[in-house]
Amino acid sequence: MNSSMIRIIIGHVMKIEALLLLLPCLVAVIYGDSQGLTYLTVAAGSMALGTLFTLRKPEDKTLYLKEGCVATSLSWIVLSVIGALPFYFTGEIPSYTDALFETISGFTTTGSSILTDVEALSHTSLMWRSFTHWIGGMGVLVFLLSVISLSGGSTINLMKAESPGPSVSKMAPKMKATASMLYYIYAALTVLEMIFLIAGGCPVFDSINTAFATAGTGGFGIKGDSIAGYSAYIQWVVTIFMILFGVNFTAYYYIVMRKIKDAFHMEEVRWYLGIIAGATLIIFLNIRNIYDTAGEAVRHSAFQVASIITTTGFATADFNEWNTICKTTFITLMFVGACAGSTGGGMKVSRMILVNKTIGKEIRGYLNPKSVKKILFEGKPVDHEMLRGVNVYFMTYIMIFVASLFLVSFEGRDYGTTFSAVATCYNNIGPGLNEIGPAGNFSSLSVLSKYVLMFDMLAGRLELFPLVILLHPSLWVDLFKHKRNIRRKKQANL
Amino acid sequence: MNSSMIRIIIGHVMKIEALLLLLPCLVAVIYGDSQGLTYLTVAAGSMALGTLFTLRKPEDKTLYLKEGCVATSLSWIVLSVIGALPFYFTGEIPSYTDALFETISGFTTTGSSILTDVEALSHTSLMWRSFTHWIGGMGVLVFLLSVISLSGGSTINLMKAESPGPSVSKMAPKMKATASMLYYIYAALTVLEMIFLIAGGCPVFDSINTAFATAGTGGFGIKGDSIAGYSAYIQWVVTIFMILFGVNFTAYYYIVMRKIKDAFHMEEVRWYLGIIAGATLIIFLNIRNIYDTAGEAVRHSAFQVASIITTTGFATADFNEWNTICKTTFITLMFVGACAGSTGGGMKVSRMILVNKTIGKEIRGYLNPKSVKKILFEGKPVDHEMLRGVNVYFMTYIMIFVASLFLVSFEGRDYGTTFSAVATCYNNIGPGLNEIGPAGNFSSLSVLSKYVLMFDMLAGRLELFPLVILLHPSLWVDLFKHKRNIRRKKQANL
Repeated sequence: MNSSMIRIIIGHVMKIEALLLLLPCLVAVIYGDSQGLTYLTVAAGSMALGTLFTLRKPEDKTLYLKEGCVATSLSWIVLSVIGALPFYFTGEIPSYTDALFETISGFTTTGSSILTDVEALSHTSLMWRSFTHWIGGMGVLVFLLSVISLSGGSTINLMKAESPGPSVSKMAPKMKATASMLYYIYAALTVLEMIFLIAGGCPVFDSINTAFATAGTGGFGIKGDSIAGYSAYIQWVVTIFMILFGVNFTAYYYIVMRKIKDAFHMEEVRWYLGIIAGATLIIFLNIRNIYDTAGEAVRHSAFQVASIITTTGFATADFNEWNTICKTTFITLMFVGACAGSTGGGMKVSRMILVNKTIGKEIRGYLNPKSVKKILFEGKPVDHEMLRGVNVYFMTYIMIFVASLFLVSFEGRDYGTTFSAVATCYNNIGPGLNEIGPAGNFSSLSVLSKYVLMFDMLAGRLELFPLVILLHPSLWVDLFKHKRNIRRKKQANL
Repeated sequence: MNSSMIRIIIGHVMKIEALLLLLPCLVAVIYGDSQGLTYLTVAAGSMALGTLFTLRKPEDKTLYLKEGCVATSLSWIVLSVIGALPFYFTGEIPSYTDALFETISGFTTTGSSILTDVEALSHTSLMWRSFTHWIGGMGVLVFLLSVISLSGGSTINLMKAESPGPSVSKMAPKMKATASMLYYIYAALTVLEMIFLIAGGCPVFDSINTAFATAGTGGFGIKGDSIAGYSAYIQWVVTIFMILFGVNFTAYYYIVMRKIKDAFHMEEVRWYLGIIAGATLIIFLNIRNIYDTAGEAVRHSAFQVASIITTTGFATADFNEWNTICKTTFITLMFVGACAGSTGGGMKVSRMILVNKTIGKEIRGYLNPKSVKKILFEGKPVDHEMLRGVNVYFMTYIMIFVASLFLVSFEGRDYGTTFSAVATCYNNIGPGLNEIGPAGNFSSLSVLSKYVLMFDMLAGRLELFPLVILLHPSLWVDLFKHKRNIRRKKQANL
């Protein structure tokens, strides 16, 4: 295994994080928060460590799938471990486990919180908390690829490991161009949301935070009641932008390239919008009589559906109070998730489409064994390898889910709490049901459950395999052998 | 589609059911129950209808996979519709929906009951109820194949559709020989259990009923408290026989053929026994302090684990009162299920092994892309087609589960009840959690939920596809076209 390339990438990630930590520092200056100094210290430390890591150039620059996966998952772990330090050092989150949970929840755009009173945080920490969503939404390695040319390496493997969905569609011929394009679209949409929010009378600080959390489909709110306290206009703006950030970014690329027809012909996007419309209707019919006007019921239905399918996790109502049909709808949406190639989590609409088509093909096979019709997706035949990948993903997904459920059930909570805790973290959503519903939080869980859920959040965000292979013993045996070989070669040269 | 062959098979099934209904008639004579006459009338009607169905010989005797599936699922539906009549006509179950639910629950060896007071049933109906488990356990079509030579047809397709597990292993070179062998082993084990029970002081009527329900891994008890009221000896006998009936019957075939070494080398059986041992240990550690002696705790742990993994559904304790770790263990076991080729339900241990091996292969692929190691099962390489089948099965399984969950959530019960109702029926287990736990029953559910659960029980028993294709419109279009072609041919001949 090429461990020096992994070292270099992690070093770069540390340096980027140091720069990103300057945003909360700036907020500290504006609001005169004393916490700014802590943030600055952590930033300096991260920069120093990152420089140290990148000092020695690697001999071999190739990056295979395995190294890509390992580099990605280690980067995310390092990012979180460092990102949690300011929360801990400022004393705003007194337990490091909790600080790490909150930071992983931020970077993975989950939005599950251990805070009992979010409004007690300083402006500086609130901004860093929301900013982690924005950074994690598009991915820090995609950012790395957009600013640095990792010469000579097959960098697609880094992007593959970090990007959500069954396949990375290369938009531009060069990786760097694709990565930059993604970040341009991402930043433009975020700024657009900020403008819409500010125009509706939302305070600037709130607008920036909310836009960050929407863009990453994260869901950390800066108010105790999430988005419920804001005006109907603001709630609608957030609803629309949540939906927009859950769309496959390839659609926006088509729009930028003036191939608008192609954007609207994307099968995944059409299914995604159709599911949102259907689910909103179901919820509306079930909560209609709770609210005074139909308009209000529609707003809350659409908001909650958009929030859950995109795995954002904002709330304008405590859906824990709604009936079981609503809850089942939400739990189903949690697993479906947003489009591939968006910032949303879950299993992704495209995978669902492919799973359904595979089942359909099987049924046709029973009815007519001679039928050999190929599965089409987005108008093109799906190759065998990709289908196999989706199947294996689906199975692995369920297996990790069951294993996590098992570990978290040591909590001894009711089944709804246990089940939804895993479902919400694994799918990077945020709130669950019952004790961890929109009105509750994760602080009272045991340390074991918190670490299991942290693993689930990372596994959900990195789409399982990059993280799962870290646990495979042969990886470490391999690393050890590689080191030994290098040592031997050196000795032979002496 | 060859609909005349389907008609013939259904006709045979009706005739077999008429004969099987004579057992409760015999019980009625012994106990002097007035219900015997109703049973006799239904038997006569079934025989008459069956004779009518089999009167005209089919022109074409071939039976493709599609016809095999359709014949199987229609046979099971007809079997249940007729089997429910005595319960309804005797007035012992006043609603036909409930009678049908109870009968399907019986034939599919689920064991979920709508009865609030099982001890109020007549001996005749109790015997019929337990007997449905025994009939459904090994399958009525397997029975048909063991007594009648369906000449000229590729009857393996019937057996494929009815037998549980990813593949039918042909034990004997001839289908009829395999089918008879299965029934011999099945009957021998059942009689053995009866003897052990009677030897332990269990009343003869109770012993016969309990053995029938154990053999089919069904779980209908004839007492309100299931097996809890019997002695420790009887509970241990039932535990051991539940485990034995969950073993792949190929193992018994090996033993009969004196290839005992082969029987103990079966990978699936070893995993199955290992899972039982592990789960029993987990439950034991969690309930140890509820009971006075360790022996009692071991007995209840082993009983409940055996009952759930084999999907029998007997109970000696209300595990609804146990902690969440126990509940999660049970829900996991519900899905794992027993061995393929046994009378148990669930997804089957062999499928789980294959799913895990597929995931393992994927992970190795990430670590070493050049690795092309084949997946081995029972020492032989697994062919691609079978793996694909398992993958698709797994996906379809989850999809039907989610759809059912959605429909049953219209009940508006708590999430534990809703989730476990579907899990328990779909996996052919019996009791669920909370309101439908070992101490509750299914009577209060809505008619919609009852029909959804009936579908799930049949889908679980027939392993999805035979039932699912019945819902596919093209099947009916095909049937219509076939009829029209025959009519045209006849007209052309005139």
